[in-house]
Amino acid sequence: MSAEMMVPVQRKGSHRLSEAFEKAVRELLGARWSQSESVREHHGRDESSYPPMLPDGVAFVESSEEVSTVLKLCQAHRVPVIPFGNGSSVEGHILAIEGGISLDMSRMARVLDIHAEDFTVSVQPGLSRKQLNEELRSTGLFFPIDPGADASIGGMCATAASGTNAVRYGTMRENVLALTVVLIDGRIIRTGTRARKSSAGYDLTHLFIGSEGTLGVITEITLRLHPQPEQILAASCSFPRIADAVDTVVQIIQYGMAISRVEFIDALAVQAINAYSKLDMPEQPTLFFEFAGSPAAVQEQVAIVAGLVAEAGGSDFAWAEQQEDRNRLWHARHQAYFAALQLKPGCRAMATDVCVPISRLAECVEATVADLATSAIPAPIVGHVGDGNFHLIMLIDPEQPEEWEEAERINHRLVARAIAMEGSCTGEHGIGLHKMGFLRDQAGDDAVDVMRSLKQALDPLNLMNPGKIFATQVARD
Amino acid sequence: MSAEMMVPVQRKGSHRLSEAFEKAVRELLGARWSQSESVREHHGRDESSYPPMLPDGVAFVESSEEVSTVLKLCQAHRVPVIPFGNGSSVEGHILAIEGGISLDMSRMARVLDIHAEDFTVSVQPGLSRKQLNEELRSTGLFFPIDPGADASIGGMCATAASGTNAVRYGTMRENVLALTVVLIDGRIIRTGTRARKSSAGYDLTHLFIGSEGTLGVITEITLRLHPQPEQILAASCSFPRIADAVDTVVQIIQYGMAISRVEFIDALAVQAINAYSKLDMPEQPTLFFEFAGSPAAVQEQVAIVAGLVAEAGGSDFAWAEQQEDRNRLWHARHQAYFAALQLKPGCRAMATDVCVPISRLAECVEATVADLATSAIPAPIVGHVGDGNFHLIMLIDPEQPEEWEEAERINHRLVARAIAMEGSCTGEHGIGLHKMGFLRDQAGDDAVDVMRSLKQALDPLNLMNPGKIFATQVARD
Repeated sequence: MSAEMMVPVQRKGSHRLSEAFEKAVRELLGARWSQSESVREHHGRDESSYPPMLPDGVAFVESSEEVSTVLKLCQAHRVPVIPFGNGSSVEGHILAIEGGISLDMSRMARVLDIHAEDFTVSVQPGLSRKQLNEELRSTGLFFPIDPGADASIGGMCATAASGTNAVRYGTMRENVLALTVVLIDGRIIRTGTRARKSSAGYDLTHLFIGSEGTLGVITEITLRLHPQPEQILAASCSFPRIADAVDTVVQIIQYGMAISRVEFIDALAVQAINAYSKLDMPEQPTLFFEFAGSPAAVQEQVAIVAGLVAEAGGSDFAWAEQQEDRNRLWHARHQAYFAALQLKPGCRAMATDVCVPISRLAECVEATVADLATSAIPAPIVGHVGDGNFHLIMLIDPEQPEEWEEAERINHRLVARAIAMEGSCTGEHGIGLHKMGFLRDQAGDDAVDVMRSLKQALDPLNLMNPGKIFATQVARD
Repeated sequence: MSAEMMVPVQRKGSHRLSEAFEKAVRELLGARWSQSESVREHHGRDESSYPPMLPDGVAFVESSEEVSTVLKLCQAHRVPVIPFGNGSSVEGHILAIEGGISLDMSRMARVLDIHAEDFTVSVQPGLSRKQLNEELRSTGLFFPIDPGADASIGGMCATAASGTNAVRYGTMRENVLALTVVLIDGRIIRTGTRARKSSAGYDLTHLFIGSEGTLGVITEITLRLHPQPEQILAASCSFPRIADAVDTVVQIIQYGMAISRVEFIDALAVQAINAYSKLDMPEQPTLFFEFAGSPAAVQEQVAIVAGLVAEAGGSDFAWAEQQEDRNRLWHARHQAYFAALQLKPGCRAMATDVCVPISRLAECVEATVADLATSAIPAPIVGHVGDGNFHLIMLIDPEQPEEWEEAERINHRLVARAIAMEGSCTGEHGIGLHKMGFLRDQAGDDAVDVMRSLKQALDPLNLMNPGKIFATQVARD
């Protein structure tokens, strides 16, 4: 395991914008170009445990054509560019480690067209997932991908996000049909069509999903939608031991059932959620379920899952039948990250994100719980366990380097464990700054070098969100 | 629309293998290196209407390491390489238009490991889809992707294949977890893990799926598997008019139902299938259905579909309840291409492959039927209509250039129609040689140039299946 990520990174060098660049971008954008401290501060921090690293300016763009013009200016003046959605990423993705500008997409937040009859919608990248579902409400359709935060759709493409619904509906990879992308040289390309499938040339759509702003700027997204199920039931139940809860999930998945959601929350996370969301769930290892489909299908699913839960010694289901109750349950789950932060005032969170084959999940969770027992760092566990994905939310005091280092050591051991189990260091958060060493451990030097070659092909001056995913060294002069 | 594809291409130049290369490859492979006319002939033709273009030799490789050694030799000696699976592609993918060697994967056809508990399997690329499902029979799992031919899994990755099950299970894109790929410089990379999801760096898996052998050689594939449904029912029904059949499909899809299969076959295709597979279906526009799931779910689906069929004036269902009957039905469907060829002795087929958003399907099919009515070329229609994808199997006499040209004109009008409807020129067959002009029409010059840049990054000498997907000109000396 590489050690270079064991301490917080610092902004490198002292890039400054040239007067010529500032003049050109100000002429183009007027008041939509800002270098104020507060605006830069807002664009220089995310939800990671890193200290802020501010961009030198922020461009509030409004169209693909404007993005194209700004990128051409950046290329001409050798200015790094970092696309910015809602700033909710957790691995340092949007920190300006080499300076440059932040490209704020919040003014590009429109729904462009809804084709309900084709189950597709095209949107701009600044739209958030909740805003999208508000707009879809009357169509009978919805967009399922739901990371904890109300992330922007563009940011969700950039990190290949998923969430609680991925066990049924897949991740962003399975739910994006096409993108419009602007390259650093100003070219605007469309990566796909509105057809459900296509074998027309290289899969550029998937190349940009998960590219974390390092290959181009996503300015339009065509998504797959899904019909709202006829019936939805949600329930929770608790278990005496973590192992029983996780084993139950493994059995449900291995049964091959099309369950909508199955989420694990450990006792400490329940405690945090109870306090934060004013609930009174038993403070024990807990599973949250959602069953959806036709009434007959829901009934079948519930019967099977209830049987497996009872065999494992789980409690009776606490039902959330009304939409209002369900919303409360899932809102509480989505707020788990923020609830956890309240367990230790003034802390920052280092969230782990391993994902392992389902057959290795119980073993991975148990070994991790045993490892955590040797540490004083509070670390509630939550997980999209149906996918084999779980998070430790390690709460560390940013003023105490030894806490950071201890959390890093736990994370390194966890990632090594997941990789040894043929899993991934990140199921949904992405690499960003924080997992670059882990990516090399997982994919190998040659695969990372291939990624670097692809970046070199599209961004030869290394201006698109430089220094994320992998280290790059390019002479820009 | 570009006109350069209107006539058959010819093998370019007169590349010859050097004595030094031949000596080296013979020392490496012994009897697994062949330059016999019959072996080269077998590797120089596919199911397209192109005349054969033979490679200069065929290497029967047995491991990733051996592929690596061969590719390094090819790079050192500037020899083009064409990976070869079962030769069942239909767009000229494996024709040796610049000479070089064919890399035959048929000796790499093992199942490497089955993880039934994770619904994954790892296989070598030469294994065929039917062989794979034979090996999986005892596990209760299956691999759903089923192009008409018994294609190799590696070839199915290379073309992003799909088939009749894609409406329920997706295409190769949704069902490949990871690949081992050998690059032209001999590097062997692994593109993913066995975890269900990962956000670890660029999506190299999807970059190689659909790359048609132009970026590297796929030597190992980890696939997602699916549980065999508890109950499966299949049925067919016929309609007086094509429009009624297609409208019914559109309604089924827009209902949001998880139907397993829904295939359209026009009257001429039924006639061909009846003759070839010794069946006696009514020679009318026909739909083939498969319903699968729990008995309750199947019952629900059947009731809804039967209602929609009746409203559209369709016949009663002809049921295929027993596995043997179902197998006969789907075997007949899969043989449609070969059945069609028998309609016109000595003919070759030019198969079209457009895919449009489902809301435009009826309009696209109807306009195409009207266009065909002006031509004397027999063209049975079959389609994965649930995906918006359908094929004309245009039967042309290879000795009659005017038939080829007329078929090309029909194809050009069809593709233009599909692109105008926000669809794709190819739903599952790929670009190969035949659709290069269509790809530019569909994706635009800039997107194709991006694809070319990616190829340049991984294969700077343009040795991997050169001249497919897009034209390339690289000095190799």
